Amino acid sequence: MEALKQRILKDGSFRADGILRVDSFLNHQIDVKLLNEIGKEFYSLFKDSNINKILTIEASGIGIACIAAQYFNVPVVFAKKAVSKNIDGVLYQAPVFSFTYDRECIITVSKNYLSEFDNILIIDDFLAKGNAIIGLIDLIKQSGAKLCGAGIVIEKGFQGGGDMLRDMGIRIESLAIIDNMDEHSICFR
Amino acid sequence: MEALKQRILKDGSFRADGILRVDSFLNHQIDVKLLNEIGKEFYSLFKDSNINKILTIEASGIGIACIAAQYFNVPVVFAKKAVSKNIDGVLYQAPVFSFTYDRECIITVSKNYLSEFDNILIIDDFLAKGNAIIGLIDLIKQSGAKLCGAGIVIEKGFQGGGDMLRDMGIRIESLAIIDNMDEHSICFR
Repeated sequence: MEALKQRILKDGSFRADGILRVDSFLNHQIDVKLLNEIGKEFYSLFKDSNINKILTIEASGIGIACIAAQYFNVPVVFAKKAVSKNIDGVLYQAPVFSFTYDRECIITVSKNYLSEFDNILIIDDFLAKGNAIIGLIDLIKQSGAKLCGAGIVIEKGFQGGGDMLRDMGIRIESLAIIDNMDEHSICFR
Repeated sequence: MEALKQRILKDGSFRADGILRVDSFLNHQIDVKLLNEIGKEFYSLFKDSNINKILTIEASGIGIACIAAQYFNVPVVFAKKAVSKNIDGVLYQAPVFSFTYDRECIITVSKNYLSEFDNILIIDDFLAKGNAIIGLIDLIKQSGAKLCGAGIVIEKGFQGGGDMLRDMGIRIESLAIIDNMDEHSICFR
């Protein structure tokens, strides 16, 4: 998606520890107009997949998923990273290691909101080593739902998670895939 | 907002520990059509306030804020509840006690995204004792931005936070105010 790549080049920045900072438009301050273009693009890619629910994970995925859900006309479910008093009953759970927060967490979805009758599109902001997506797929498998694919805003291709998931037969559609980056340049696939 | 009140009566449930569960449409599974009606209502209430940015707090506020931001045509900034590798530089921070998670957290916004030139609308899903809103107001004060008011989806009027904030001169617009509730009934103001 050309507008996204141009925005990453204009406003993204690379940090020495391997983090790509896009907090001015994607995961701290959010450019909702750009999110609309992203949502339209996900719809264009997955409109024939009979998606009836979008699954994402808190926190940065939620805004992207909600804006995209308007085009699909389906509800969003977001996996929680901590057990909250707001959900109870029987839960699907899976461990996920977060490099952003440098700790493992247990992601959780209530059994009320994923079932064998669901055709799920996963949406998330980043795909690096694939840990969050693997955790979400684990929840989907526990529920018996069908996974139609994953829509990712930015894939760090050089970390290998996207290609590992594609090799498992999962449809991964990333709107920008970065093959390498350093302080001087960001190269897209 | 009548459609919201009817939805709370239809799908909300009261738990003995005082929690109102609305996880089927608001804070775990999200009914994006309802969020659009909520966003329109916030716009109708605050359209003359020259809002240039919406501030919310992760996680449940993000979807509501992003959908509402489409009507205001402004960006969203969400305060983070944990220090993440995705933000750095100089930060505004404030302590907030979360009753949902039964622990205090430090909420954080980068200084890049709040300034004296901003006219801020706070949006959040719930207002109970007002702790989260007080924390967000603290961040806004540190930045020198102007607070135009807060748009809340559900206020638990019986917990007093909304009236405390109104007594401080802050404009609080809650789309449904619950004055009391038990296992048999939910009464709106």
